[in-house]
Amino acid sequence: MKKVAVIGVGITKFGELWNSSLRSLTIEAGTKALSDAGIPGEEVDALYTGCMTGDMFVKQGHISSLIADYGGLLPVPSTRVESACASGGLALRQGFITILSGVADIVVVGGVEKMTDALGSQTTGYLASAADQEWESFNGATFPSLYALMAKRHMYEYGTTEEQLGLVAVKNHYNGSLNPNAHFPFKISLEKVMGSTLVADPLRLFHCSPVSDGAACVILASEEKAKELRDDPIWIRSSGQASGAIGIYDREDICTIDSTVNAAKSAYKMAGVTHRDIDFAEVHDCFTIAEIINIEDLGFFKKGEGGKAVEDGITSLDGELPINPSGGLKSKGHPVGATGVAQVVEVVTQLRGKAGKRQVKDAEIGLSQNIGGSGGTAVVHIFSR
Amino acid sequence: MKKVAVIGVGITKFGELWNSSLRSLTIEAGTKALSDAGIPGEEVDALYTGCMTGDMFVKQGHISSLIADYGGLLPVPSTRVESACASGGLALRQGFITILSGVADIVVVGGVEKMTDALGSQTTGYLASAADQEWESFNGATFPSLYALMAKRHMYEYGTTEEQLGLVAVKNHYNGSLNPNAHFPFKISLEKVMGSTLVADPLRLFHCSPVSDGAACVILASEEKAKELRDDPIWIRSSGQASGAIGIYDREDICTIDSTVNAAKSAYKMAGVTHRDIDFAEVHDCFTIAEIINIEDLGFFKKGEGGKAVEDGITSLDGELPINPSGGLKSKGHPVGATGVAQVVEVVTQLRGKAGKRQVKDAEIGLSQNIGGSGGTAVVHIFSR
Repeated sequence: MKKVAVIGVGITKFGELWNSSLRSLTIEAGTKALSDAGIPGEEVDALYTGCMTGDMFVKQGHISSLIADYGGLLPVPSTRVESACASGGLALRQGFITILSGVADIVVVGGVEKMTDALGSQTTGYLASAADQEWESFNGATFPSLYALMAKRHMYEYGTTEEQLGLVAVKNHYNGSLNPNAHFPFKISLEKVMGSTLVADPLRLFHCSPVSDGAACVILASEEKAKELRDDPIWIRSSGQASGAIGIYDREDICTIDSTVNAAKSAYKMAGVTHRDIDFAEVHDCFTIAEIINIEDLGFFKKGEGGKAVEDGITSLDGELPINPSGGLKSKGHPVGATGVAQVVEVVTQLRGKAGKRQVKDAEIGLSQNIGGSGGTAVVHIFSR
Repeated sequence: MKKVAVIGVGITKFGELWNSSLRSLTIEAGTKALSDAGIPGEEVDALYTGCMTGDMFVKQGHISSLIADYGGLLPVPSTRVESACASGGLALRQGFITILSGVADIVVVGGVEKMTDALGSQTTGYLASAADQEWESFNGATFPSLYALMAKRHMYEYGTTEEQLGLVAVKNHYNGSLNPNAHFPFKISLEKVMGSTLVADPLRLFHCSPVSDGAACVILASEEKAKELRDDPIWIRSSGQASGAIGIYDREDICTIDSTVNAAKSAYKMAGVTHRDIDFAEVHDCFTIAEIINIEDLGFFKKGEGGKAVEDGITSLDGELPINPSGGLKSKGHPVGATGVAQVVEVVTQLRGKAGKRQVKDAEIGLSQNIGGSGGTAVVHIFSR
């Protein structure tokens, strides 16, 4: 099979960026990534952008054209990909597939969301469009409540504790305190998490990732181009994607996200590795319970043992298997369409050995996992030096 | 290069389908297409769906997961593609690229929009999200007004007449009267068009395509699979995509849509044909002026001579170069995300010689052209028996 590399990465600060627009954020991340790759816009053959719903947040659809236009890349083919919060990961996958197809040699993959221009009262409703509208959202279910149900069941089945959930937030905020681009780059204590406002029992405010603005971008290249342009390309060893039931009402077991299990299976197989070969991972911690479920579904820990692994420090930055060295969605922030690409920016930065104070030791193989909704979509990518 | 074929097509009735939902329409078109291809769902490797904004029209995002789930196709990878009204055409292109890449052998490509559940007063605003929000929509520009500006200029530059614009509608309604799936399957007279309510001078009601519900689906296969499954696969000879300025304020010439010119150039080159080899085409007649501009930009007629060609009957069903034998967006209807796929359903049906009373004689090579917004995106595909 052909090989595809990441040859450039760029990311904006994540946060409440009231002086930036959807287009300015995207162009900022893209310009940084092209500059990192050391190539001019003329080299770009195609553009993919993940965005969950610019339509609703800022009333701007058709951002494929907008970004190609404002990025000075016309007439390059440009396509927006959407699978809720997995939009960024799927944009990466489309870029990967497009290079494999031979249609393009250099592809720009971006992810963006401008969420804070909407009223807070609207935002939860907009996000709920990623659930089953007729059977979940219409009846009042929102994502905090859906993940709260998953958490309750996980606690009931496996004895996972509120403290273990809280420790995911504590760990990720510690990592995020070392990441200058994080939305909330500061440490928090377990007491702070446990004492924060209850959102949907058992999930409290500090179990939830924030509403953020931000953009991220990576430049992909075919093997030949990558070798020509860089000494240190990072290889995309595999891409796995799977769908699952959109609604949690239709799942046999709400402690497992089937789409992650299936996407991971494909990704491990294509890369010719197992979960034991992974040195660190960026996973989709939209809520703390999601990180625990994800690290189990990815095969890192047995079902029910994810909470214990966090408690034991195995997933800490200096642990055996660091999870979310970037700070994750929890501390770094979660501009939904940008998240899947931002994860890749972190994985590549770590594999290059350029992550500074949050550098994972001996990082050779990294994994990113990005989820849409409550798990209706999952995408897993594996990378190596 | 590898070859990719269309081995199944399916389409719903287009119209105000108040008894159907977004999911039921999609499943209906998909089931028809799989049945036409003669394959079970288990054979499907990937799913792409074009949808402009389920988010806004019916508050349902993440339809990739919804459709895989309700279509009984889990855990197949499923991805939504959006480029406004070009979403369907771009979904087809992603399916084509995915088969070229070797990642999949059989891909389902759907397009859907459920528009009539929204209030009429909201619909024009939702559609305007495909224009430049900050510089066009925010200031009150809607698509009828943007295309009206293009029409005015075309009339000024080339002497195109209101009658010529009207004759596009008359022709397309004649074709649509022969299409049982059309939203408005009846003939209209030039007098009727010329006497209809003025929407945005010079465009009247019957110069505008309708707001429709509907879905369409095609099944793509690799060469090997296609030959195994059908005696009459229709080959996708090429796929061309290009981006242009999203806003008409930023174009040198608003009588030309650059993205179409560039996408057509790529498509002709990849297929190894010229515009002279095309026997018929489905083009994006969201407004009558769009059809005239498109048939010029595709190279069929010199710039400024499109209106005359329509008047002379060259683009009629029995003319030298039939345009929109299906009835086009004007009469068949325009469920925006479905349109690009519905065009392909028509091209394939024609090339199979199964178009009944609207069959184009000696149809060997057909073209489809799909536009997003006022031309920020264009995608052109060429097909042959």
